[in-house]
This record gives sequence, C-alpha cells and structure tokens, in this order.
Amino acid sequence: SGVCFSGLAVAFTLDKPTSCTWKAEPISGVKALRGAPSEMRLRMEKLCMDLQGQLCAELERFESGDKKFRVDRWTREEGGGGISCVLQDGESFEKAGINISVVHGNLPPAAVAQMRSRGKAMQEGKQLPFYAVGISCVVHPVNPMVPTIHFNYRYFEVSDSSGKILSWFGGGTDLTPYYLNEEDAKHFHSTLKQACDAHDKTYYPKYKKWCDNYFNIPHRKERRGIGGIFFDDLETPTKEDCFKFVSSCASSVIPSYVPLVEKHYRDSFKENHMRWQQLRRGRYTEFNLVYDRGTKFGLHTPAARIESILMSLPLTARWEYMHEPEKGSPEDELLQVLRTPKDWI
Amino acid sequence: SGVCFSGLAVAFTLDKPTSCTWKAEPISGVKALRGAPSEMRLRMEKLCMDLQGQLCAELERFESGDKKFRVDRWTREEGGGGISCVLQDGESFEKAGINISVVHGNLPPAAVAQMRSRGKAMQEGKQLPFYAVGISCVVHPVNPMVPTIHFNYRYFEVSDSSGKILSWFGGGTDLTPYYLNEEDAKHFHSTLKQACDAHDKTYYPKYKKWCDNYFNIPHRKERRGIGGIFFDDLETPTKEDCFKFVSSCASSVIPSYVPLVEKHYRDSFKENHMRWQQLRRGRYTEFNLVYDRGTKFGLHTPAARIESILMSLPLTARWEYMHEPEKGSPEDELLQVLRTPKDWI
Repeated sequence: SGVCFSGLAVAFTLDKPTSCTWKAEPISGVKALRGAPSEMRLRMEKLCMDLQGQLCAELERFESGDKKFRVDRWTREEGGGGISCVLQDGESFEKAGINISVVHGNLPPAAVAQMRSRGKAMQEGKQLPFYAVGISCVVHPVNPMVPTIHFNYRYFEVSDSSGKILSWFGGGTDLTPYYLNEEDAKHFHSTLKQACDAHDKTYYPKYKKWCDNYFNIPHRKERRGIGGIFFDDLETPTKEDCFKFVSSCASSVIPSYVPLVEKHYRDSFKENHMRWQQLRRGRYTEFNLVYDRGTKFGLHTPAARIESILMSLPLTARWEYMHEPEKGSPEDELLQVLRTPKDWI
Repeated sequence: SGVCFSGLAVAFTLDKPTSCTWKAEPISGVKALRGAPSEMRLRMEKLCMDLQGQLCAELERFESGDKKFRVDRWTREEGGGGISCVLQDGESFEKAGINISVVHGNLPPAAVAQMRSRGKAMQEGKQLPFYAVGISCVVHPVNPMVPTIHFNYRYFEVSDSSGKILSWFGGGTDLTPYYLNEEDAKHFHSTLKQACDAHDKTYYPKYKKWCDNYFNIPHRKERRGIGGIFFDDLETPTKEDCFKFVSSCASSVIPSYVPLVEKHYRDSFKENHMRWQQLRRGRYTEFNLVYDRGTKFGLHTPAARIESILMSLPLTARWEYMHEPEKGSPEDELLQVLRTPKDWI
C-alpha cells in the first residue's frame, strides 16, 4: 500500500500513505523526513512538502479531470535541489507555480547582498556556507474576479566568518486582486491575523505594514496588491517559537485563499476586465523583475534553476502607454487602494 | 505658410516649413534650434528632433490613414523636458515609441552609478549638475516576421567636483528578430557598418562586439537579439568628430530598418508564430527591466517620466514554464544565434 509520487519515473513508498500528499521524493529523502525529524532543516522541509501537496490538490479541484500540476524534481550540482509544481493554461488557472527548494553550498557576495534585509551580520566579498529551505508560490487565475496570491516561507542558515551558524525565518502571504472586493480583503487579512495573533499580538500590525512597504512599486507610486503579511530575519524569542509561527502562517494559506477562488471562479467577466487584468499583470512583472529580493537573489545565484524562479511571472501581461482608468470606475477604485494602503480589519 | 505641430494645442511657425518634420516645439524652443546652432547641446537636440520627425513619418506610411503617432510634450520641474511619440495598437505596429529628452539638473548618486559604464571620473555620493540630450526608440511590429528595432543616441555633460565639464556621446542601434532571416541580418549590419566605416574602420567590429556583450540576458544565457552597434563614453578624437559619427549613426536608422518592414509587413503568419513572438517579448521585457542601464537610470531619476521610460516595453508579452522550441525548428534556429552571436558580414 505505497504511494507513487506523480510525475516521477521511479516510485517511492511510504509507511503512512494516508497522510502523504507529497508530489515527489523529498530532496533530503523520504527516510529523513519520515516521522518527526528533530533537525530544523528537515522539519521545515516537511512543512514545505505538506503544504505543496495540499495546495496542489486544492487547486486541481478547480480544473477538469485531466489537468494536473506538472512536477519537476531537480537537483543542483552545488548541493540540494527542489521540486517545482506548475499548472499552466488551465480552465481556472492561467499559471500556478509552487516551488520548494532545499539548497546549500557557498554564497557568492552578490547573493549575500540580496539576502540581507536589515543587515544580518555577514561579511560581504567572501563566500559563505549556507543552507536554505523554502516554499514559494504564485497563482495567477484566469478569471479577473479571482485575485492572484503569492506566498513564500523560508528558513536560512549561514555560517559567519567565525564558523558560528546564524539561522532565521522569513516569509509572508499577500493578495493581488484585479477588482476590489472588501469582503474578500477582510476575509484574507482576518485569516492571516488569526495565524499571527495566536503567537504574538504585535505580529499582524507589524507584518501587515512591512508587507505594504515591501510590495511597493516606487516608480508607479503603487503597491503591487492589497498586501497581507511579510517578515524577515525572524529569530526570536526562540527558534522553536519561530517555527511554530511559520507553521501557523503556512496553515493559513489555503483557508485565506481557496474560499475566494471558490466564490469567484465562475463569475462572469468581459473583455475590458481581462484587459485590466493583463495591465495589472504587467505591473506584477515590473515589481518581480525590478524590485523583488527573492527574484534578484535567484538571478544572482550561480546555477540557479531560472525556470523555477521566473515561474512567478504571469503567462501573459500587457503594457499600454499612458493608461489611466476612468475616474470612479472599479479599476480606479482598486488603484486608489494601491496608492494608499488601508487597514482591512 | 507656417507649420502646425501635430498633437499640440498651440501652433508654432517656422521659417522653413519644407524641411520641418518636428513633432512639437523643441524643448529648447524653436529659435534656439533654427538655422545652425553652434552649441553641442542644441546641435544634438536638432539631430534628435529631425530623426524623430522623419521616423514617425516613415512608420505612419504602414498604417491606414487615421492612425498617427500620439505626441506628448512634457516638461520636468527640475529642468528640461521631452517629446514622446507613441503609436499603439496599429495595423502594422503593436507599439512604437520614439522619445526625445532634454533634461538638466542635479544627478543623485543612484543615477550617477547607473550612468557610468567604464567609470567616468565622477564622485559618487554627491549631487552633480548635468545636461542630457537624447533620443530613444523601440518599435514592436505586429507581424512576427518583422523584427523589433531599438536605438538610442545621447549626449551628456556633467560637471565634476572641480567645476570642469565632462562631455561624451553614447548610443547604438540593435535588431531583435523573432525569426531569423540572414539577408535581413546582413542588410541591417551592413548599413550600420557603412555608417561606422566612414569615420573609423575600427568602430564597427568594436561596437558590434560591445552590442553583443551589452544586450545579454545572463540568466537565460541568451542575447536579446542579433545585435548591431553599441558604444558609450565616446569623447575622442574631438567632440566634433564624435558628433559627426553620431549623426551618421542616426542617419543609418531608417535605411537599416524601414526596408525590412517594407519587405515583411504583409508576410503571412500563424498562431504559433505569434506565440513565439510573445515569448520573445517576454525575454525583451526581462532584459529591459533587469539589466538595461538606460531603464535603471530612468527608474532611479527622481520625477522621471515613467511612461516615457517604460514605453519600450511591448504591448503584450508571455512567459511559459519550461518552453523549449523543437530542435531544428525556425524558433530553435533563432535561439542558436542568440546563444552564440555570429558575424553577419
């Protein structure tokens, strides 16, 4: 009664197939992740594997029978690898990508620079041993009434020049609607707030603000979307507390988003709604390519798997010269919120 | 017998309307540019105005009667302004933008850093007075058999910390085909080579190579297109020589490109050709947003006119996960040349 990982030539079996939704053999191997591993690296990898499997299953529900996530398990010559799950050109999703990476090796200075947010104590100009485990996901739906979601949760270990290992967590979940729906925005933010509040009442307001500041497109004077939560360099009060918090964030992804897909994926829409969606996807692309630290980190990492980094880009995008939505239109209503982020709860 | 600049509310008149193809009142005024100005700033502005007007007229020939370039004349609070001409959603051109800017003021450190290519002797961290005149253009045609062209010619003056004015020219013209046509590639490169050879036999090979190196997308291990010429920091042997060379380059733009439009704009094409064109436009966007110094310079210049900078982006673009053209297909043939640039003459 084993489980065959879909998309793989070789079949792997597990002891507890009922709990297994994994899309491929974990990078660290099945044995290392089975049961309750004690090392943080492995606990985090397990969390990523579980979420990837669950979310793939949730999203496939909105596609007709034969449309499934494509699974690519890749390895990295320098150490580690990843599992990329992509569903493209679906009925409900134009492009949905969920990527896990478990990579280690030595960090080049350019990558170290992109990795630092508030100035982790690392020497630049020097190759430093590192270990990174993370999951990253973007879902671009077909229907313009369904928002795009992005999330990313990651755990880093880097040795400093004295050999001491620094470790921290980072991540966040944020929403990019094409049309504003206050009820949806409230549902999304409340779900994230609940996950935060269970650990520290100061987290949601702090990380909501951090998210608004991070997903900013300065040259457009617009936010990318209506935000969510974002944090980095999390290492207090204890590593265990941090992991529990990240686990809650990961658990909140599906309940924050899937009900919105369910609610709107059959909404009617017209040509003009699609055109606006395409224009907003252009802005999404601008943010990801010009400002996103994760993307820049990837583009500067030697032998990075480019397809897994750039799978966050939409299938299609549009740039119109001097486009400005009509005052008071639903498109304009969204823009106002992107220009001046608001509190949803 | 005056000439009314199209797209402007106010009409301006010139002494010699027969030679005037300008699209709006020059930023430095009609009087300053009339006849033969002696200041290099003004001579360069006149060159830009002439080329903009001529190219707009040439491209409008491929559109039906009522489709014309939209003309926006804009001013910049900090000093100067520009004239942006854009034709969008045409029969023959999906998006064609020709922008002139004549700007001056003080450069912030971030912009200075983007401005330096081989390390012009400028102090960073200090605001420096500058004057920049340039023309920049991208033409994205509808028909996938017609290549995209980009060119940019510019003249800079920057005061160093002692008050001495450093000045130099930069620029180039390059071609991005979707399908390779050797005859077209040879025609394009030969036209540029002729313009170079008239001034210095070493220019074409040197600037062809520089172009291949500059329009590079390292994370894709591909060039953006099949190149052309590219140079920067040009200040020898004399300023007069440099200007004459830049004038020749500017004069070669229309003969290098318009015959290719003429030859192919009525070629038949299918859905699969369009899809490939869209994918290549995705790569074009990657280059412009991630690597292009001109774009980065613009995005970091305070109060820059973003619409004029990002008008270089295609109207539409596409990103498919793991797309790889069939071995030996015309799409693959292009890719081979983008991966290993070749000599066309």
